[in-house]
Amino acid sequence: MKKVVLIPDSFKGTLSSAKICEIIENRTKNYFPQCKVVSIPVADGGEGSVDCFLAALGGEKVFVTVKNPYFEDMTSFFGLIDNGNTAVIEMAACAGLPLVEDRKNPMKTTTYGVGQLILAAVNRGVKKIIVGLGGSCTNDGGCGAASAVGIKFFNDKGEEFIPTGGTLKDIVKIDVSEKNEALKGVEIITMCDIDNPMYGPTGAAHVFAPQKGADPEMVLALDEGLKHLAEVIKKDLNMDVSGIPGAGAAGAMGAGMIAFFNSKLKMGIETVLDTVDFDSVIADADMVFTGEGKIDTQSLRGKVVIGVAKRANKHNVPVVAIVGGADEGIDAAYDLGITSIFTINRLPQDFSISRYKSVENMTFAVDNILRLIKSIRK
Amino acid sequence: MKKVVLIPDSFKGTLSSAKICEIIENRTKNYFPQCKVVSIPVADGGEGSVDCFLAALGGEKVFVTVKNPYFEDMTSFFGLIDNGNTAVIEMAACAGLPLVEDRKNPMKTTTYGVGQLILAAVNRGVKKIIVGLGGSCTNDGGCGAASAVGIKFFNDKGEEFIPTGGTLKDIVKIDVSEKNEALKGVEIITMCDIDNPMYGPTGAAHVFAPQKGADPEMVLALDEGLKHLAEVIKKDLNMDVSGIPGAGAAGAMGAGMIAFFNSKLKMGIETVLDTVDFDSVIADADMVFTGEGKIDTQSLRGKVVIGVAKRANKHNVPVVAIVGGADEGIDAAYDLGITSIFTINRLPQDFSISRYKSVENMTFAVDNILRLIKSIRK
Repeated sequence: MKKVVLIPDSFKGTLSSAKICEIIENRTKNYFPQCKVVSIPVADGGEGSVDCFLAALGGEKVFVTVKNPYFEDMTSFFGLIDNGNTAVIEMAACAGLPLVEDRKNPMKTTTYGVGQLILAAVNRGVKKIIVGLGGSCTNDGGCGAASAVGIKFFNDKGEEFIPTGGTLKDIVKIDVSEKNEALKGVEIITMCDIDNPMYGPTGAAHVFAPQKGADPEMVLALDEGLKHLAEVIKKDLNMDVSGIPGAGAAGAMGAGMIAFFNSKLKMGIETVLDTVDFDSVIADADMVFTGEGKIDTQSLRGKVVIGVAKRANKHNVPVVAIVGGADEGIDAAYDLGITSIFTINRLPQDFSISRYKSVENMTFAVDNILRLIKSIRK
Repeated sequence: MKKVVLIPDSFKGTLSSAKICEIIENRTKNYFPQCKVVSIPVADGGEGSVDCFLAALGGEKVFVTVKNPYFEDMTSFFGLIDNGNTAVIEMAACAGLPLVEDRKNPMKTTTYGVGQLILAAVNRGVKKIIVGLGGSCTNDGGCGAASAVGIKFFNDKGEEFIPTGGTLKDIVKIDVSEKNEALKGVEIITMCDIDNPMYGPTGAAHVFAPQKGADPEMVLALDEGLKHLAEVIKKDLNMDVSGIPGAGAAGAMGAGMIAFFNSKLKMGIETVLDTVDFDSVIADADMVFTGEGKIDTQSLRGKVVIGVAKRANKHNVPVVAIVGGADEGIDAAYDLGITSIFTINRLPQDFSISRYKSVENMTFAVDNILRLIKSIRK
């Protein structure tokens, strides 16, 4: 093989995408020393997404001081790729749950820093910004980020304030007239892999707030707040964002990105594939390796493996998926462009045992796939 | 691919060698309709061995009336292969445990029928006989089979008798002078995959008699009987067979085959490989598929997979091993000729669960291996 492309999803809880790339690259170099290996660790928008893009494309990691979830100064970062024309931001870098591990409270936390990161990127002259949602500790509907770029929120006394989850209910007016001009003409893409609406039983508060520290009472208050925010957005911005799939992502940051930043929500894998110009990358590749923790009927609806396969299929490049498990009912994967699916389970063991052998099992599977390929290509 | 050779061991307790061949052949025909598929289900000497040889080589199944383990008439059989020049006998066909399921007693059961099968084969003019040990209900050291071909056993009163496990101790003299002349010039090979000596703590009685119905007292008596038989063999036949690895196989039938039939003990897989002329079969093959329930350090000492790999290696034919489990410490398998090892575990599940999915899991693994091969050979 002269060129292979590695673009695996992470195996949730056991192997990061970067680690899997490292294993496959290492073994490929062992069996095909001359082979060019292109590693594209897949970012899902959550923590580590900036590093994934930088690993795949090269670029610069820019550190800036912004507000943390409690409006305190912190050093955060964004990535500059594409010769400085595109910035990649992961909201977890200044509004992530690990930042407030011992003081979780989605009533009080803010996405203000995310808006600051966006502004910092804009000030670097980028034409495009990718914002990854996921792993947040907030439930402010993106109002913090909006405030940071000049959007103003007023209460019933006409006082301007920066809303957080607990004060969304106090918003009576939103004024976008002083939104930072520099944002004009900058395309903002929001990476978002979930479908939840802004509020309601499957909305941001009910589904995600508990893991951010909300008790049942808080959940109801947060849900009410988001519903109220949606109404004010409708009134003042003339947009109905509440029902858009993904509006409820990251404490309704999805809704805020649409309403306040004119952003589109886009599947993480599609964002990655477009950003790395995947079609060009694979055009001359002999093989694509992808994978995920478990391939199931859900996977067929556009997760990493199938997203990759569909594109590779257009170029007739074989796609090998290496997975932790393969459910029944996935034969359609072959029609969608998957050549072969291999599982890493070296022994018939329950996941509770085998999870601790993930590196060894992955290495073993990769080794044997490469050995087979080599025996045929000899 | 133009030609593939299938030669898997059984997956103990889940998939027979023949079933695995069927699955791989079926899937191969699906992806490579023009491919010649040579299936060699592996016989281990136990029940089903005759059918394995006939499936691999074609031939005739000959039915004859012989004595069952209790000296009652029964219809048994042997296989004629190699244009009638070679016979294959499985001792389980007339001395097998399932034949006496409700009256197991290794003190009383006989291998007499095995001697009759040997004679019947000799009378068909064969030049070679392969006798498979395994699955027996007897512990007579092969004295029954010897009696059937004219070897005489005498007690201390000078009376001739046919010894069984319980009467081995009564043998004072063995007379081979009237052994059937027709046996001369017929090569007899005994298939035997175990190493146990004739008697003692790791001998036939102690290790295998309990599963044949012996209580602890019987085990001691049987062990004493075998020790005594070894002494008489030494005295009258001038052979010391007791310590030969495999002498203790099948109720010390291994010892009897050596002492009374001048047979050699040979690994099952080596017997199969030689009999099917494996080197010629694979000379023009593109790929060999083998496998076993679990490949481990034990496997490296000459079980099916490694036996196959060593020969294929000489012809530079890639060998894919499909297994139920792959232990650590088996890297030497690659040096011995294995190209790749793939496991069939579709999900990280304990064997207690996955065993019921063996057919589906095997089919899935085979499918994906073939799809990968096809993608490269296109």
